[in-house]
Amino acid sequence: MTRVDVQKKVLSENERIAATIRQTVRENGVYCPNFISSPGAGKTLLLERTLAMFPSNMRIAVLTGDIQTDNDATRLARYGFPVRQITTGGSCHLDARMVERAVDGWDLASLDYLFIENVGNLVCPSSYDLGEHDKIVILSTTEGEDKPLKYPATFSRAGLVIINKVDLLPYLSFDLELAKDNVRKVNPGVEILEVSCTTNHGLDTWYGWLENRRVRCTEATSASAAN
Amino acid sequence: MTRVDVQKKVLSENERIAATIRQTVRENGVYCPNFISSPGAGKTLLLERTLAMFPSNMRIAVLTGDIQTDNDATRLARYGFPVRQITTGGSCHLDARMVERAVDGWDLASLDYLFIENVGNLVCPSSYDLGEHDKIVILSTTEGEDKPLKYPATFSRAGLVIINKVDLLPYLSFDLELAKDNVRKVNPGVEILEVSCTTNHGLDTWYGWLENRRVRCTEATSASAAN
Repeated sequence: MTRVDVQKKVLSENERIAATIRQTVRENGVYCPNFISSPGAGKTLLLERTLAMFPSNMRIAVLTGDIQTDNDATRLARYGFPVRQITTGGSCHLDARMVERAVDGWDLASLDYLFIENVGNLVCPSSYDLGEHDKIVILSTTEGEDKPLKYPATFSRAGLVIINKVDLLPYLSFDLELAKDNVRKVNPGVEILEVSCTTNHGLDTWYGWLENRRVRCTEATSASAAN
Repeated sequence: MTRVDVQKKVLSENERIAATIRQTVRENGVYCPNFISSPGAGKTLLLERTLAMFPSNMRIAVLTGDIQTDNDATRLARYGFPVRQITTGGSCHLDARMVERAVDGWDLASLDYLFIENVGNLVCPSSYDLGEHDKIVILSTTEGEDKPLKYPATFSRAGLVIINKVDLLPYLSFDLELAKDNVRKVNPGVEILEVSCTTNHGLDTWYGWLENRRVRCTEATSASAAN
């Protein structure tokens, strides 16, 4: 078997499991986003701000992926919702099998949201379907405007792009409009939000976007159940 | 053949080619560092500052890797030294075969430095030996202090760690000492330089480090030729 054949087999196994996860979350009206970014672009802090915003009766579960350490799970667990760390032990991305194992014992049907924070890597995670509704790609202003063009596979698959750390703009040579143009070159029509988790700039819009997705997701499930 | 077998075979093929590159650069006293970091941590700008520092009679060649675009090669070519872009077209790291092909036609024996800028990725590049003398790992202050612990394979293999963008420290909650402690936890004794390519802080020390390595590398070659 060649390397290509093996990769294909691994991917199709991944697709099969991802399809099962997708079916479960869709049937139950659970909105499931998959957060992807470079290391240190601010996925965990954005998730912290997001969890802090929800009332405690919101039904949320969180998976967070890292190659090593459970630091992120510890940070995220402070908000009172169930959190599980997926430590990949070397692998540069989450795959559907890891997600399937990590949710074992959770009643997915009872959730409103299942948040998945991927390993910090702008390349490999976007190739692995986790059964999510949307890949949410976070670009930090400190990374430069060219990243959407350099990592087109990831940005082109985004259901939303968040430009994070806009509070640092006064201290950087980052051209926000150019960055957005570059995002649109590889993903025309994708929504782009500007956010700072330090000043809270843009977080209300982000919460609104998220709630809107969840409501649409619940409605789609109800409509399908009614048919 | 299992996936593991195929990966082993690919790696050993890589090691064979890397060994050939290593032999060529060592025999000829060419200092060859391999720059590794997250996307946007500042590899290209640091290389620009570095090339700008050298007199035009210094014999330098540069390889720069990206998944897509030749933006970095265009930026780096302005300094008058030969630069070649390696566009991996999807692959998340450089491998030795790519380097071997990219240097084709260059007289490596006539060089003082061969700089290799890897694909922006803190995970995969460190697993692929390119025959370099040192992996130089760049951590940006905007990425957070925890990255050495989360990406231990990369930081533990570093011959030098550069903490970049220290000009942004006043605007961040980044704890520089904690970051250094974390680097040392996974790589005790490694040198750590603090740098800003915006204010030029620390660049003289970096140039000194680099020249020192090159001189040691030339001396080692002369000593071995004399024996």
